[in-house]
Amino acid sequence: MNEFDRIAEFFAPLAGEAGLGLKDDAAVLTPPHGRQLVLTVDQMLEAVHFLPGDDPAMIARKLLRRNLSDLAAMGAVPLGYLLTTALPPNLPEGWLKGFAAGLAADQNQFGITLLGGDSSSSRTGIALSATLLGHVAPGQALRRNGAKAGDEIWVTGTIGDAALGLEARLGNRPDPTGFLTRRSLLPEPRTGLSLAGIVNAAIDISDGLIQDLGHICRESGLSAVVQAALVPTSPEAAALGPEVLERRLTGGDDYELILAVSPEKTEALCAVCAGIKITRIGIFKAGEGVEISGDNNAPLNLASSGWKHF
Amino acid sequence: MNEFDRIAEFFAPLAGEAGLGLKDDAAVLTPPHGRQLVLTVDQMLEAVHFLPGDDPAMIARKLLRRNLSDLAAMGAVPLGYLLTTALPPNLPEGWLKGFAAGLAADQNQFGITLLGGDSSSSRTGIALSATLLGHVAPGQALRRNGAKAGDEIWVTGTIGDAALGLEARLGNRPDPTGFLTRRSLLPEPRTGLSLAGIVNAAIDISDGLIQDLGHICRESGLSAVVQAALVPTSPEAAALGPEVLERRLTGGDDYELILAVSPEKTEALCAVCAGIKITRIGIFKAGEGVEISGDNNAPLNLASSGWKHF
Repeated sequence: MNEFDRIAEFFAPLAGEAGLGLKDDAAVLTPPHGRQLVLTVDQMLEAVHFLPGDDPAMIARKLLRRNLSDLAAMGAVPLGYLLTTALPPNLPEGWLKGFAAGLAADQNQFGITLLGGDSSSSRTGIALSATLLGHVAPGQALRRNGAKAGDEIWVTGTIGDAALGLEARLGNRPDPTGFLTRRSLLPEPRTGLSLAGIVNAAIDISDGLIQDLGHICRESGLSAVVQAALVPTSPEAAALGPEVLERRLTGGDDYELILAVSPEKTEALCAVCAGIKITRIGIFKAGEGVEISGDNNAPLNLASSGWKHF
Repeated sequence: MNEFDRIAEFFAPLAGEAGLGLKDDAAVLTPPHGRQLVLTVDQMLEAVHFLPGDDPAMIARKLLRRNLSDLAAMGAVPLGYLLTTALPPNLPEGWLKGFAAGLAADQNQFGITLLGGDSSSSRTGIALSATLLGHVAPGQALRRNGAKAGDEIWVTGTIGDAALGLEARLGNRPDPTGFLTRRSLLPEPRTGLSLAGIVNAAIDISDGLIQDLGHICRESGLSAVVQAALVPTSPEAAALGPEVLERRLTGGDDYELILAVSPEKTEALCAVCAGIKITRIGIFKAGEGVEISGDNNAPLNLASSGWKHF
């Protein structure tokens, strides 16, 4: 199959109205009336962001979900996406079929359609990117720079599962139920929460709790103190014992949200997050940097703050 | 340098207002009032779209220009872009400096700003993509499917230079003036032409004149007859003799426009294209496929129609 066959068979059926059947040079989108657009892009590269041999449907879904999580962190409603694929010539056709099925599943789940893309051959491994569009009410996008001293630090879900799941997939951790592995392969972006007016700052955890919390601190001109014992853990991660604490605090790929919330907004936060586990883990203060309080409130010193691409 | 250092030093200075200093999870863009958005994405991969050792500034500019050419083919006004970079860890810092300088030069030339991006390490070669946004008046986007039987086929610029320039860069063609090489490295996207209401269909030549003209034929349900002798050639390509005709007709990367124009719109077309060479090369008819007429109107049979990624 050449690129045009691939587009016609696997990708054109995923196109929404603005995608013009993927038959033109570009998509034409009428922006939602009276809304601002929110735009983000993320890559997934073989041997960097996923393992050779990973299920193509899961790769597709994680590609969308990493970007959907960025939209969630901005408080945006997802709208659509553009896709790039660079594929080795010997890739079996079943790979593309699975990849497209994964895209279709999450398009359906998150209410998005394909707007356009670019299909190339690759001389090395598989390289993918998705550009996601969403929308917010004007001036209502959640930013990293809005946290105030005294705001409480809340997180959605449980923290550190994905990093432990990756280690399990590499054969370095037990994962008898497969839960940690699933958390690594298929994150749950926290779209659909009406956080505007409640949350002062937000970010999603892609590079690790400490590092991503550090971004809010830097942009808001504050420090953060986190009680390690409060950081929510799944039973499966807890079963690995206290020695995985540092891994949980610094491991990436959770795609949970970190939220800065004034104490008087606690009730409103809990109301809009009904059905999702949310946990208060610490507080923002004047100063700079992220401090982790361990047993007896002694500060924990961590070897690394989180993932950085070099 | 890690990804955050790279973003702060090289990419944040390129961000426009909607890019929020590249300090958030996504860009927030207020769409131009009463306009439709036009969105496109293209990749540039080392050893596929550019050669190892190519000037990073030229790679950056070509990455933007390939996408700007897609916007031009839709009749859109460029607005901004998102960027992905996947870079090997041993890449010299000077590469990034040159790459960012190339982006800055073309941002300035084409009136666009950086909205956001994603920076990753690569285990193989350099991989890049850009998602470009533009805007058009509602319903005025140029499409591939609007050509009518009797429309004349026009092209901008000269055809085939870039493919010959690539061959020159590979040492397989003479290029004493360097003109063909420059055409391969730095295309001139035809943005800024007010073609709405004049042109019935348009596409840019990325994969070769014949193949891209074929896309208009397929989407418009027509055939095209091109007089090979009318296809505009640069003096530098002409100097290579008639044996490069097929290469010129099927070689990609020219980023000139193919336009379908009713004969009574000729004058209006020439008026809006003042200062740009445009040439009538044939006509659309009922039927299907692209026919090339050579000497004495005998059809030319070509071995290939143009570039396809497998």
